Amino acid sequence: MSTYNAPLADMRFLMNEIAGLKEILGLPGFSEVDADTVDAILEEAAKFSSEVIDPINVVGDRQKPPVWKDGVVTVSQEYKDAYKLFCENGWHAMPGSPEYGGQGLPSLVNFAVNEMWRSASIAFALCPMLTMGAVHAIEHHASDEIKKKYLPRMIDGTWGGTMNLTEPQAGSDLTAIRTKAVPNPKGDGTYLITGTKIFITWGEHDMAENIIHLVLARLPNSDPGLKGISLFVVPKFFVNDDGSLGGRNDLICSAIEHKLGIKGSATAVMSYGDHDGAVGWLVGKPGNGVAYMFTMMNHARIHVGLEGISVAERAYQHALSYARERIQGAIIGDNDSKTTPKPILFHPDVRRLLMDMKARTEALRAIGYFAAGQMDLANFSPDPAVKKKAQARLELLTPIVKGWSTESSIDITSEGVQVHGGTGFIEETGAAQYYRDCRITAIYEGTTAIQANDYIGRKTAREVNKETGDVGFTARDLYKEIAAFADDLAGDAKLGDIGKLLQEAAKALIDTTEWAIKIYGAEPQVAHAGSVPYLKLGGIVVGGWLLAKSARIAQKKIDGGETDGYYKSKIATTRYYAKHWLVQAAAIAREIIEGGQSVLGLDEPLF
Amino acid sequence: MSTYNAPLADMRFLMNEIAGLKEILGLPGFSEVDADTVDAILEEAAKFSSEVIDPINVVGDRQKPPVWKDGVVTVSQEYKDAYKLFCENGWHAMPGSPEYGGQGLPSLVNFAVNEMWRSASIAFALCPMLTMGAVHAIEHHASDEIKKKYLPRMIDGTWGGTMNLTEPQAGSDLTAIRTKAVPNPKGDGTYLITGTKIFITWGEHDMAENIIHLVLARLPNSDPGLKGISLFVVPKFFVNDDGSLGGRNDLICSAIEHKLGIKGSATAVMSYGDHDGAVGWLVGKPGNGVAYMFTMMNHARIHVGLEGISVAERAYQHALSYARERIQGAIIGDNDSKTTPKPILFHPDVRRLLMDMKARTEALRAIGYFAAGQMDLANFSPDPAVKKKAQARLELLTPIVKGWSTESSIDITSEGVQVHGGTGFIEETGAAQYYRDCRITAIYEGTTAIQANDYIGRKTAREVNKETGDVGFTARDLYKEIAAFADDLAGDAKLGDIGKLLQEAAKALIDTTEWAIKIYGAEPQVAHAGSVPYLKLGGIVVGGWLLAKSARIAQKKIDGGETDGYYKSKIATTRYYAKHWLVQAAAIAREIIEGGQSVLGLDEPLF
Repeated sequence: MSTYNAPLADMRFLMNEIAGLKEILGLPGFSEVDADTVDAILEEAAKFSSEVIDPINVVGDRQKPPVWKDGVVTVSQEYKDAYKLFCENGWHAMPGSPEYGGQGLPSLVNFAVNEMWRSASIAFALCPMLTMGAVHAIEHHASDEIKKKYLPRMIDGTWGGTMNLTEPQAGSDLTAIRTKAVPNPKGDGTYLITGTKIFITWGEHDMAENIIHLVLARLPNSDPGLKGISLFVVPKFFVNDDGSLGGRNDLICSAIEHKLGIKGSATAVMSYGDHDGAVGWLVGKPGNGVAYMFTMMNHARIHVGLEGISVAERAYQHALSYARERIQGAIIGDNDSKTTPKPILFHPDVRRLLMDMKARTEALRAIGYFAAGQMDLANFSPDPAVKKKAQARLELLTPIVKGWSTESSIDITSEGVQVHGGTGFIEETGAAQYYRDCRITAIYEGTTAIQANDYIGRKTAREVNKETGDVGFTARDLYKEIAAFADDLAGDAKLGDIGKLLQEAAKALIDTTEWAIKIYGAEPQVAHAGSVPYLKLGGIVVGGWLLAKSARIAQKKIDGGETDGYYKSKIATTRYYAKHWLVQAAAIAREIIEGGQSVLGLDEPLF
Repeated sequence: MSTYNAPLADMRFLMNEIAGLKEILGLPGFSEVDADTVDAILEEAAKFSSEVIDPINVVGDRQKPPVWKDGVVTVSQEYKDAYKLFCENGWHAMPGSPEYGGQGLPSLVNFAVNEMWRSASIAFALCPMLTMGAVHAIEHHASDEIKKKYLPRMIDGTWGGTMNLTEPQAGSDLTAIRTKAVPNPKGDGTYLITGTKIFITWGEHDMAENIIHLVLARLPNSDPGLKGISLFVVPKFFVNDDGSLGGRNDLICSAIEHKLGIKGSATAVMSYGDHDGAVGWLVGKPGNGVAYMFTMMNHARIHVGLEGISVAERAYQHALSYARERIQGAIIGDNDSKTTPKPILFHPDVRRLLMDMKARTEALRAIGYFAAGQMDLANFSPDPAVKKKAQARLELLTPIVKGWSTESSIDITSEGVQVHGGTGFIEETGAAQYYRDCRITAIYEGTTAIQANDYIGRKTAREVNKETGDVGFTARDLYKEIAAFADDLAGDAKLGDIGKLLQEAAKALIDTTEWAIKIYGAEPQVAHAGSVPYLKLGGIVVGGWLLAKSARIAQKKIDGGETDGYYKSKIATTRYYAKHWLVQAAAIAREIIEGGQSVLGLDEPLF
């Protein structure tokens, strides 16, 4: 087994050179954070992820996954110990609001730190991630009373939090939600909730003293659509006014799922109100539940995208470690290797696999960090124009970060298995876990199709400027910027080959975007039939742009006398990416534009 | 859970129209087989696969996988019952030689029947597959005495057979084999074998009365390379002269592996000679062991490729069944669906996923069946020119069938998971099993890189005609045929769009082939850095060619008044494939030709 080492060099480079950390630290919200603090946090988080979280990843997956018995979920002692340390060391509270014990760091810094937790163990990191999702929902939409009651202990990790959306008949389609909430006959302003929720991540466990469930349910006589759904806080144990825990609420975990991956996390079936009804407190206004969820959507989706990046990085490190150790066969075209055996990293195709894993992971990370930086600008910039542009770019890039990072992670972890040969198929080796774990990331928090439809529709062809009537301004503006950068780089003496491929790819993305804007209204099915390839195209091009920007900066550093191998590596990685990924853009554009009808060309009974 | 239904319409069409069943049934070897017999066999096999094998697939995977205890592997009663019926009904013996109880059917027919067994359960089907591999090795290379002793009962399935190649330090590189064989001091002509073999599929189990292991080992003072390795027959129980079983040989299954997939099959660690040495009988001549294995390579690789096709088909059927049942959300651009809900098959991206699964699976099946037909022509044609050409084409296509079918199955089964959404990640749903099971197929019997290096090297750039000095004749000749067909189809009134895309794709393959032939000698590392993309390119183009041929035949049938929906479906599927897969060919060619150097552009320490 390899040990996880946070890729600090790439993280720092992207934060500083691509995501604008310096500008972000200068924003009014972050006056108490400086570059040294950020650096110290990264160093400590790197240590914690390697030493505490990474070793338990296998425990949750293959040794002691959570066990369900009579409604109680018990996790391993290793998980409990790690969770305790995680909270004690302040990592759990870090992303929370300073008002309730958090550190008020930029999203960008939290993003980098979260990459580490998830590379070390997606399953473990899901617990604080879900709690933080619930924290944000309460923070933004609940009453002060609810905030004061729950937030401090959710932020420090004493209590966990969950999000209860899905029901057996209501997955991607939340309109189908049936869970009911009725005013408590006691007339105390609470509600009684009844219904079954499924796929509730960390819905029940014994790492935290209490679990605060956020539940979507319908009030009586409400609108039958999305506007009839409200959001409720439903604690596992009631919380007394003095903050102590009271009795048990009428809710139970009736089962946990047998899953392909992320086995270290309990995925619960939650049953509310089997007896008198689970007591819940309304969050905000009735009928606003789905809207409240959607306000957190960017954040949640970006963070699931980050899971894809994280597991790709971990799979790369694991495969690289094996490829450096394993000796098998002489290397073609290398006569020395016949007498002095070399590890399999020197076999051209193993090199190709690792190069592909590395280049793609770095491209995904660049997009993710760029988007996280936009989040800070959108939230904190004092300049309304900067704020608006950053928010628009964040929204445009969110489906790419979520959809493309997770889809790519499926390939990348599969490449990691392949590097291992036969041992990759054996569970003890560990490579297969990443291949299994990552598979859910392209599904939960909105499938890839949902991301892609959002990207081609709401974020592009349906993005209308109310004042000017302009359509797709944000997308067009970003791609124009990419094309202009490519034109410039194409003339570069050293990186011109990369620039030319980026030019081609940007043109393909622009052409496809214009096509999408033109046909979306008249032929939405054709647009949606090409939406996932369009998401892939967007991901490839935006990733290529940020890699190319990185390569240009790296080249300048080298020209200025810097000798750090990281810069050489960045250029070689970008060149590989350009010649293997940017080169595909034009064909994907044709696939979308010329091939859309053919997706719909077979009558349903003939499948 | 869906039920497997053999795709008989596509199987029959490919056998008759693409693989040349009629011509094959006219060959001297098959005078006793007619078209009606073949049809009856297909019908019965389809029934057996659905009714007997398909239901146990989940048993071996998630309910009662094989259990190891003290060297004994016990499988479920369900597996035992199915195996017994499989043998009793004559399916086990079917592919064997008629001399020893087999039916002497064309390879093409065995191929179709084997597709059914593997779609129903790869893990189960591996047992007869490995036995048949051992049967072929004995049949072609062992003495008459050995043949008579072992073949009849291996062919009827009373005894199993295994192939013991891999050792911990010897995976892809067989030169590293250390297992030893020494002449038995008793001087009875037998040998004593000592060593550990790993990854031995069905190396131990209780479905058969005896297991006949074929083991690669080194004789004393033999060549340190491949030529020092010999092949031995090492039975689990000795066989007396009257055919009854004697005592136990000195070999034991010391463990079975915990694997990502194919959990229904026991993958054994085999320990030979822990006491006095396991008694083995030499097969053929000393030092020829690896050569004997290689004579069976085409057969074994084609059959692992078939596993990829089979699991892709099964995943498609499973996903389609779910997509027809599951209702979730209104369909974009379809107002009726708001009031009359439609299943998710009508969502454009679900349709895209299923179309992709279907089109790719049919392309892979076409290549596989074409290759299986070539096998029959190569083995039985009385015309030396036909025989030679078929053998050469079989050898060229073998790495494509193995490498491309299995790599594609990884994507296709992943698409199957995606169609299911969240439930796809839950093991009970069954979709995840195909995603796990297929992953080994791109590794065992030679990884994809090994297939790809064989394809670009020995089968193309290093294929030299000894008389004329021509290089790569077989590849050039096949691709010329494809290009000529494409030119013709491009002028077709109804299918011209497909023909034009095939023209483009054929040109890309031809250009890349010429490049490979030119640079292989001087820059073998660059060639091997592009070999897997080259394999992908070859797979896409050959598959597109055979689909396009099928579409043209289908169009003629329709023009002639045939109303079977199968023909309409074949044309729609081919059009989708052309516009989504053939369209990529030119970019892949650039990736290989322009991008090869960039794979090798990063110094090893900088990874």
